[in-house]
Amino acid sequence: MRLARKGLETTTPNPRVGCVIVSSDGRLLGEGWHERAGEPHAEIHALRQAGAAARGATCYVTLEPCSHHGRTPPCADALVAAGVARVVVALQDPNPRVAGKGIERLRQAGIAIDVGLCAEASAELNRGFLTRMTQGRPWFRLKTAATLDGRTALADGRSRWITGEAARRDVHRWRARSCLVLTTIATVLADDPELTVRHVPCRRAPRRAVLDSTLRLPESARLLHGEPVWIFTVREEAEKRARLEARGHRVIRLPADAAGHIDLAALARWLGANEINEVLIEAGATANAAFLTAGLVDEWLHYAAPCVLGNQARALFALPEPGTLEEAPRFRVEETKRLGEDLRLRLRPTDRT
Amino acid sequence: MRLARKGLETTTPNPRVGCVIVSSDGRLLGEGWHERAGEPHAEIHALRQAGAAARGATCYVTLEPCSHHGRTPPCADALVAAGVARVVVALQDPNPRVAGKGIERLRQAGIAIDVGLCAEASAELNRGFLTRMTQGRPWFRLKTAATLDGRTALADGRSRWITGEAARRDVHRWRARSCLVLTTIATVLADDPELTVRHVPCRRAPRRAVLDSTLRLPESARLLHGEPVWIFTVREEAEKRARLEARGHRVIRLPADAAGHIDLAALARWLGANEINEVLIEAGATANAAFLTAGLVDEWLHYAAPCVLGNQARALFALPEPGTLEEAPRFRVEETKRLGEDLRLRLRPTDRT
Repeated sequence: MRLARKGLETTTPNPRVGCVIVSSDGRLLGEGWHERAGEPHAEIHALRQAGAAARGATCYVTLEPCSHHGRTPPCADALVAAGVARVVVALQDPNPRVAGKGIERLRQAGIAIDVGLCAEASAELNRGFLTRMTQGRPWFRLKTAATLDGRTALADGRSRWITGEAARRDVHRWRARSCLVLTTIATVLADDPELTVRHVPCRRAPRRAVLDSTLRLPESARLLHGEPVWIFTVREEAEKRARLEARGHRVIRLPADAAGHIDLAALARWLGANEINEVLIEAGATANAAFLTAGLVDEWLHYAAPCVLGNQARALFALPEPGTLEEAPRFRVEETKRLGEDLRLRLRPTDRT
Repeated sequence: MRLARKGLETTTPNPRVGCVIVSSDGRLLGEGWHERAGEPHAEIHALRQAGAAARGATCYVTLEPCSHHGRTPPCADALVAAGVARVVVALQDPNPRVAGKGIERLRQAGIAIDVGLCAEASAELNRGFLTRMTQGRPWFRLKTAATLDGRTALADGRSRWITGEAARRDVHRWRARSCLVLTTIATVLADDPELTVRHVPCRRAPRRAVLDSTLRLPESARLLHGEPVWIFTVREEAEKRARLEARGHRVIRLPADAAGHIDLAALARWLGANEINEVLIEAGATANAAFLTAGLVDEWLHYAAPCVLGNQARALFALPEPGTLEEAPRFRVEETKRLGEDLRLRLRPTDRT
């Protein structure tokens, strides 16, 4: 698992996978992790280290070895060729091109197989990949920062800073592991954010995107500096599109919902089809509410600042009232963490696992 | 300290104090704690247990032994008479009738004295008593319960239940240790609470009070059942007063502030003069804001429910916006605790110790 985590920022769109090969008397023979799509999988690195000693050894791997020729040859074949005696797999790969076929290939070769050790930990590490494989859409992680009375900014929009430095640095860590950092035109117009990873080391710049149904994005926006950005819209505007695309950005037209905004279900499908595993949503009250209502908040990272702004300040969710308290969207607190003076809560909706 | 805590619910208006007497070779000779005003202090219980063995022993006590004849004779004299060789005092008593005189009395009798061991823990246990002794007012503890987006109820006031059973039971524990549970007429009219201690054992019913500047309190209010209630008002209304007082309640007239509400500074002084150490405020957004603005939130117990009600629901603090984010009331998180699905934060203002 620790090896797998080394690929946290780089394996996208592939899953994070780690592998160790251990001799029958418990010596570590080889270890490996998948670093980058197109490069060898974890098993191959581990087998290379183990060399001839892999014969008769046990291979522990956090995800089912692949059985198909993708950008690299099948790992199941490599394990068979190396003569390992046993393979312990944390989690079956839900990728329809694998989905048990890797395990079957090993079993047919007479290799002893165990599946399920640390399955939950492996799944946790790959929520994005698994969601894309099983639902055809990414894992949406909503990031919010607010006071204890649920306010994200003063009425005029001033929000620098509600939370302290440690919390803001932590946000950059979550950006670093995301495939996509997603904001809205409202946030761009209000805060002109860069949404890059700055305050922490990062091995790969996550893609940035903006929801901009009427294509109002100022061409001077800081977001448009640096790496290419995806701009989602419902509106065709050939000249602006051409100018943005000439700068390397991409304008993507999606269907509108009844209110004329970008249809979030269509967005989710598009992102899934474009191999986005983990999305970090950093936006405002309207988008927060829209994703929540659409059932597209799989995880909620909430930074709570121990201060109070009062009832004139900006709300966290621009949400219509539930009919009863029982109907309110509910979450399970997965983790609480102190970050400087602030608290970070990590939550998941109670209506899902 | 553990002995002192046994008096948590009963010593009011006296402080919570524990005492042990230990022989020079480290054997426990006697222990005691103060249970109730008018009954013997911790030192007396411990001395009685120790008997003649107290001679030459060490006395550990969480608050300076008293030197004055109150409802009981001075403990300092009793320690001298018992012939203890050394007294270790956690905290000097700020009570102007003691304030070092107890320590002085012991020292003059040739007893070795150490002051300051576990001073902070002793002070924590007696924040209310200490605040009353040094500032002439009680320690105000604000209790709130809200969603993560800072909402205390639906727009129409429905708030049953935002938090779960464990959190609600915890509130009753904080009521049990309070001298006074304080609410407002707005909360009475909205929720008709009892404000009694019900879901946990309690050795003494804390007094209940309501702020009701225009004396609108319905005589059928559930609050008025059972033990006597203090009703604070700025309005004289002889007949209603007479009826309430005939039922054992007490109507107390206080000065109004500029807006015609009860002057909270006057309330604080009145409560101090009437020997109230710890107040638990259980009210709504207006009162929460008023106490905060008046500098009368010494501690904030915030129960956060992991759900969301949206921007139409009721706010936590009806507070005018601060001019800048830097001017927002800030707190220090002293403790976070999971209670069932909910979180409890215990906070203190950063502008005080």
